[in-house]
Amino acid sequence: MIGVVAFAASGALAAVRARLDVFGVVVLGMITALGGGVILGVLLDITPPTSLREWPYLLGAVATSIVVFAFHPKLAGLRPAMPVADAVGLALFTVAGTATALAHDVPAYSACLIGMAPGIGGGALRDVLLRQIPLVFHREIYGLAALAGAVVVAVGDTAGLSTGPVAVVGAVLIVSLRLIALWRRWDAPVAPES
Amino acid sequence: MIGVVAFAASGALAAVRARLDVFGVVVLGMITALGGGVILGVLLDITPPTSLREWPYLLGAVATSIVVFAFHPKLAGLRPAMPVADAVGLALFTVAGTATALAHDVPAYSACLIGMAPGIGGGALRDVLLRQIPLVFHREIYGLAALAGAVVVAVGDTAGLSTGPVAVVGAVLIVSLRLIALWRRWDAPVAPES
Amino acid sequence: MIGVVAFAASGALAAVRARLDVFGVVVLGMITALGGGVILGVLLDITPPTSLREWPYLLGAVATSIVVFAFHPKLAGLRPAMPVADAVGLALFTVAGTATALAHDVPAYSACLIGMAPGIGGGALRDVLLRQIPLVFHREIYGLAALAGAVVVAVGDTAGLSTGPVAVVGAVLIVSLRLIALWRRWDAPVAPES
Repeated sequence: MIGVVAFAASGALAAVRARLDVFGVVVLGMITALGGGVILGVLLDITPPTSLREWPYLLGAVATSIVVFAFHPKLAGLRPAMPVADAVGLALFTVAGTATALAHDVPAYSACLIGMAPGIGGGALRDVLLRQIPLVFHREIYGLAALAGAVVVAVGDTAGLSTGPVAVVGAVLIVSLRLIALWRRWDAPVAPES
Repeated sequence: MIGVVAFAASGALAAVRARLDVFGVVVLGMITALGGGVILGVLLDITPPTSLREWPYLLGAVATSIVVFAFHPKLAGLRPAMPVADAVGLALFTVAGTATALAHDVPAYSACLIGMAPGIGGGALRDVLLRQIPLVFHREIYGLAALAGAVVVAVGDTAGLSTGPVAVVGAVLIVSLRLIALWRRWDAPVAPES
Repeated sequence: MIGVVAFAASGALAAVRARLDVFGVVVLGMITALGGGVILGVLLDITPPTSLREWPYLLGAVATSIVVFAFHPKLAGLRPAMPVADAVGLALFTVAGTATALAHDVPAYSACLIGMAPGIGGGALRDVLLRQIPLVFHREIYGLAALAGAVVVAVGDTAGLSTGPVAVVGAVLIVSLRLIALWRRWDAPVAPES
């Protein structure tokens, strides 16, 4: 739920800045929060996707978006907490997505890829709908952090370790990598100029 | 079929204006007309999606796109009829989509969301492929009109009312809201500046 | 595999030019190479899609992308071979996609449409993610070449001809049309100005 709120807030805020109307802000908040889970569901044939069936998620995304729409100038004080909430959301979504993929009898290397969808898919949809190149492709360690956590979960599963502790390790790794990357201003490397 | 023709015409016309070639114009007409139904099918696990299986829909979308490609300067006289045809298409697609979702054993609140896909998904795909922010997010009452009709259908179903009359009420509501919004130049509200 | 390498190289090269980081380059290479197959799998309910399950494809796409990321200035000598490899990839993906759709009990006219997804879907995703109008919509004979090959495969199947030779004819037709179009600088027609 922390992840739903953080992701919905990032989508709704981006939509407010692009001067979308209230429908666009709420839909973009929902797509950012739940769109990655929809991609996961479609790839694993979980239909309709869980993130569209569970009313707490839907309500969380809608309520967050409306609050952002109505009160965003007053929420500026919360901005420092956003990256932490976003990192926690990325970690929980990625770990849960990878575990779901493994439970659907997918090879471990595929589960890492598919499992990243809930964590990074929603943000990528947000950026494409707002006519941006997805941030995850070019800014900071974001996708690589998610990948590291997904690999931990998949390797732990392959090694037969118990799921709970492995998931915690994976999630902590993602949050740590994200926050260290932000703090130290790490960017993933870019190719040499030709 | 009115909806297929109206949506295909809007996609093909936008493609002609973006100077796409004949393949691009026809594909964009088809995606605008049928893409929302494909999203509905994928979310509900109706595969391959009905809108790709039924030749009358495919033929209608292809023929409309080719006519627009070849004769669009001579079709300017039809332009005043486009918003009405588009509103009818939005209404029929949304009502049918919501009913389909309800028939697939989806909770009513999810059915409203998923049911809007056929009505607004195709236009959103059209805009993204042409590098625009989807119009449905920021212009006029469009998504909210569809939502209102979808809610009528879902509430009617939950209340056990007979499907036919409820669908008519939902569709008339959507058409009315759309045309009144266009006529009075209503826009959905935008968030306050920060 | 030729197709996977050619498509991954085109995606990774476009990503390098857009100054994406290493994660973005590899993901874009993978999406360009495998994204069309994912669309095919989702439309036909092959989940998880084959292109995400088979490690040779994944490895080919990842390795190609990393090579492009690291060595792209030194690979300029290979550039003349790219269109040929791309045409071969388009041909193999389209023929295989159409055959897969036909094997899933889809009407022949739908199989042509769905079967083009592996060949042109990945490139279209690449362009949208990099904020471009898909090249397939407006440059050269590309989609029409794929369509011609898909029609050959679908008609041959409907006529009860044996699959192997028909697939070879379809693939040769696609490669020939593509290379002749490049050589003669054929473009598909654009609509008249209004």
